[in-house]
Amino acid sequence: MMREVYVADISSIREAQVRIQPFIHKTPVLSSESLNAVSGRQLFFKCEGFQKGGAFKFRGACNAVFSLDNDHAAKGVVTHSSGNHAAALSLAAKLRGIPAYIVIPKSAPKCKVANVIRYGGQVIWSEATMQSRESVASKVLQETGAVLVHPYNDGRIVSGQGTITLEILEQAPEIDTLIVPISGGGLISGVALAAKSINPAIRVFAAEPKGANDAAQSKAAGRIITLPKTNTIADGLRAHLGDLTWPIVRDLVDDIITVDDEEIIEAMKLCYEILKVVVEPSGAIGLAAVLSDSFKKNPAWKNCSNIGIILSGGNVDLASLWDSFRK
Amino acid sequence: MMREVYVADISSIREAQVRIQPFIHKTPVLSSESLNAVSGRQLFFKCEGFQKGGAFKFRGACNAVFSLDNDHAAKGVVTHSSGNHAAALSLAAKLRGIPAYIVIPKSAPKCKVANVIRYGGQVIWSEATMQSRESVASKVLQETGAVLVHPYNDGRIVSGQGTITLEILEQAPEIDTLIVPISGGGLISGVALAAKSINPAIRVFAAEPKGANDAAQSKAAGRIITLPKTNTIADGLRAHLGDLTWPIVRDLVDDIITVDDEEIIEAMKLCYEILKVVVEPSGAIGLAAVLSDSFKKNPAWKNCSNIGIILSGGNVDLASLWDSFRK
Repeated sequence: MMREVYVADISSIREAQVRIQPFIHKTPVLSSESLNAVSGRQLFFKCEGFQKGGAFKFRGACNAVFSLDNDHAAKGVVTHSSGNHAAALSLAAKLRGIPAYIVIPKSAPKCKVANVIRYGGQVIWSEATMQSRESVASKVLQETGAVLVHPYNDGRIVSGQGTITLEILEQAPEIDTLIVPISGGGLISGVALAAKSINPAIRVFAAEPKGANDAAQSKAAGRIITLPKTNTIADGLRAHLGDLTWPIVRDLVDDIITVDDEEIIEAMKLCYEILKVVVEPSGAIGLAAVLSDSFKKNPAWKNCSNIGIILSGGNVDLASLWDSFRK
Repeated sequence: MMREVYVADISSIREAQVRIQPFIHKTPVLSSESLNAVSGRQLFFKCEGFQKGGAFKFRGACNAVFSLDNDHAAKGVVTHSSGNHAAALSLAAKLRGIPAYIVIPKSAPKCKVANVIRYGGQVIWSEATMQSRESVASKVLQETGAVLVHPYNDGRIVSGQGTITLEILEQAPEIDTLIVPISGGGLISGVALAAKSINPAIRVFAAEPKGANDAAQSKAAGRIITLPKTNTIADGLRAHLGDLTWPIVRDLVDDIITVDDEEIIEAMKLCYEILKVVVEPSGAIGLAAVLSDSFKKNPAWKNCSNIGIILSGGNVDLASLWDSFRK
């Protein structure tokens, strides 16, 4: 029998942990009896919004930047993410003392652009289309000789994100289920590879917005599905799976729970009002999934007792946050 | 030479720690290089908003409730706090299986009333005046035989709050300075007693709103000063010192830093946007103090390198929060 070789594995994840440990925050795991009561489960919230850069993305970016040999590193790194990966890559590059060229569409949320600038990234503007972003990025690549660091379709990124599993299972060894936001699949691929390798009985569920449910459709179809357009408040979850993350999602993710924007907003409110943690919509989707009817109808639900929820990030414009709460 | 005997000491604080440990959260200490850069100091944020009930108050309440012998406990506890102490006492009483009677003025913030109800407290309404609150409370005392647990002027409360110092000095032993919100003085008394006992060289500063600066005035006058009225967004910091907390504040608190509401709101924004932690105005005042010009003019400032800031609570109505950010 052939064994599928993925872009990362438990060894590369453990190596990443050693590599990034001097630079990252070991984020705390919070719990709330009020939220346990609401969900009927023991919940463990891994607060990656407290990570440097305000999101889990710093783990992967840091692993990628510090994996480079000196010659490649000297020329810097490039990405065309508009979101948390951009800030994370800027910060990792700054720590290594190399340039980070960040291609950002003019439509990106202000707070995310501000983060890139705060962390010393060089902003290069593009139009909002993926075509414009990619063409601007490849121009930068040619001019600088810098290394492209894709936000998720990259083994170094997947390995870095997987370090979350190593931490959370040490902090809360009773966890039997992990709920992870899914977008391009970098986070959940790393988390699932580590979890299934440490204990194959741990269930790994993805949480995805109904208005950007390409991963759920991909799982159903058995191949990568991309959507012509997406419609969700969770601006961090609009990407589609990559060819390197898809096989891991296909094989190791138990199921995908989809939720609508109302459920996401309700979960955000609970994070603010009960956990006292600032989360962005993408960050709250794991709690939304746990509280959703879709999950309660899932055959695995009755066996999920101790659930680890990755609160993936907290970069949100307070103004737009409030507008979403008002609706 | 006579040695002043205070209402609590390092022994009662250590006893409190053992007593409440099974019930409280050991709250994490967060740090942020961005905020270190802004302040020019290493900052350590003790996140008591993640405590049960959303504030440090649960430590003292829990110590008070679990100090009672069975006969007294059976009749329940009473308080006329309108704020976090009320929720904390309700929760502690619920954990011990005894009633909590909470006298609340009709003007109290909704989220705080909701917390009391969520934690099983029995709400008894009064008018907003202290006179009405006290007369309603004493009526309840007579009718029920319950034990009055004052929000701060009580050794059991002071001892419970002091456990914060034991934790934070274990989590960040390099701390040389602690910044603590001051209102009735329960929190800072416990924190200062423990800190000065463990290491007399640790500086303890109070942070107080300019619009409710009775503690600063008291320190200057050498006696308890009460204000005819207060005017600050920090609704948790409007009380005045008690006869049991005043001697500790007088003798052990190095200085009091006063800040205005604008500085408090700016600090709250930083907590939301950079730390990703939900704080109430009273909770953010320690950061406001560290960033204030008043502190930078303080003779001790140059020696404060590693500063522990108590983010005391996170119970805030999202609606009124947003209104304050808009101003």
